[in-house]
Amino acid sequence: MQIAIIVYQNLTLLDLVGFTDAIQRLKSMKMINDLALTYCAFEEPVTDNFGFGIQVDKIKPDLASFDVVFVPGGLGSRVLLSNPEFLAWIRTANPVPLMAAVCTGSLIFGAAGLLEGKKATTHFDEYELLHQYTSQVIEADVVEDQGMVTAGAVASSLVLGLHICRLLTSEQDALLIAKRMGLPDIYQQANVQVY
Amino acid sequence: MQIAIIVYQNLTLLDLVGFTDAIQRLKSMKMINDLALTYCAFEEPVTDNFGFGIQVDKIKPDLASFDVVFVPGGLGSRVLLSNPEFLAWIRTANPVPLMAAVCTGSLIFGAAGLLEGKKATTHFDEYELLHQYTSQVIEADVVEDQGMVTAGAVASSLVLGLHICRLLTSEQDALLIAKRMGLPDIYQQANVQVY
Repeated sequence: MQIAIIVYQNLTLLDLVGFTDAIQRLKSMKMINDLALTYCAFEEPVTDNFGFGIQVDKIKPDLASFDVVFVPGGLGSRVLLSNPEFLAWIRTANPVPLMAAVCTGSLIFGAAGLLEGKKATTHFDEYELLHQYTSQVIEADVVEDQGMVTAGAVASSLVLGLHICRLLTSEQDALLIAKRMGLPDIYQQANVQVY
Repeated sequence: MQIAIIVYQNLTLLDLVGFTDAIQRLKSMKMINDLALTYCAFEEPVTDNFGFGIQVDKIKPDLASFDVVFVPGGLGSRVLLSNPEFLAWIRTANPVPLMAAVCTGSLIFGAAGLLEGKKATTHFDEYELLHQYTSQVIEADVVEDQGMVTAGAVASSLVLGLHICRLLTSEQDALLIAKRMGLPDIYQQANVQVY
């Protein structure tokens, strides 16, 4: 199970870590033993919007061979929406069966053309911008449509991670992970829309 | 407002980032303009328990001059509980008016003697170990007692961060931050015990 974590300058660190904390428990709790995360960037350096350095494992790898591709949000996402070389790289994820984005990360998938004909969500301030990339904007914590799973503002990264855990294993395993993380209520009460 | 973030080998990254995401919004939302975070370690290198590199700003600074000292939890906390030099360094935080720890981070304050006579909590698997350091173990998301604020399993780091925001500003400001983060319900429904 190969998971690409897309990282870029001025991302929101909690978008990234809320997702990876849940996902990495698939391995530490022995649910998926061959799980590996690869931090992939278009260019270096990468820091969060407060200057916190983020590791990069690979620069511009072909994303097609990954099982899951994840994009966090952040202030730095906006400038990437009009960068054709960056978007061409993101578009190499097109054959990947499962894609996930939180907050303004879904705008990156949108600008790359990967949200066409799919229902999606984003940060509550950016619904209008998301409408440029899909006519089907849903106001929810997490939205799943045809292998594309998008989530809302930063705290929904935890619920997104748990939902991807559920898709990769089972509802039962995802709930076990949620309990380890101390948030079974949040997971079970979240507004998750599956189409 | 000087905030020390204690980092150590094999910490849990979401413990750290759930807290710092809320705290850093005090500055980005212009509630506390002179807020600064300093990542403080006893020794380098520092990575999370999956090898993710963590920046270190200062090695073994005297913690007494900070306004807030925060300790995240993680697998690496256990070995530190029997390291007298590390604990002597943590004890330099004794005069700090506000201390915060999440998950097994509270065991570090405990082993340093800073929980004596104070009610506290920790990860739900470690209540028994916490009893070695205080007779007053509380099962809650967040516990505040005499300037010591402790929290439970990893996801409670977000609620802990918001509670510290509230103590540094106001209930109204903390709720504004919770709304930006997309978790007003979680913040308002959390089990927070103040003594």
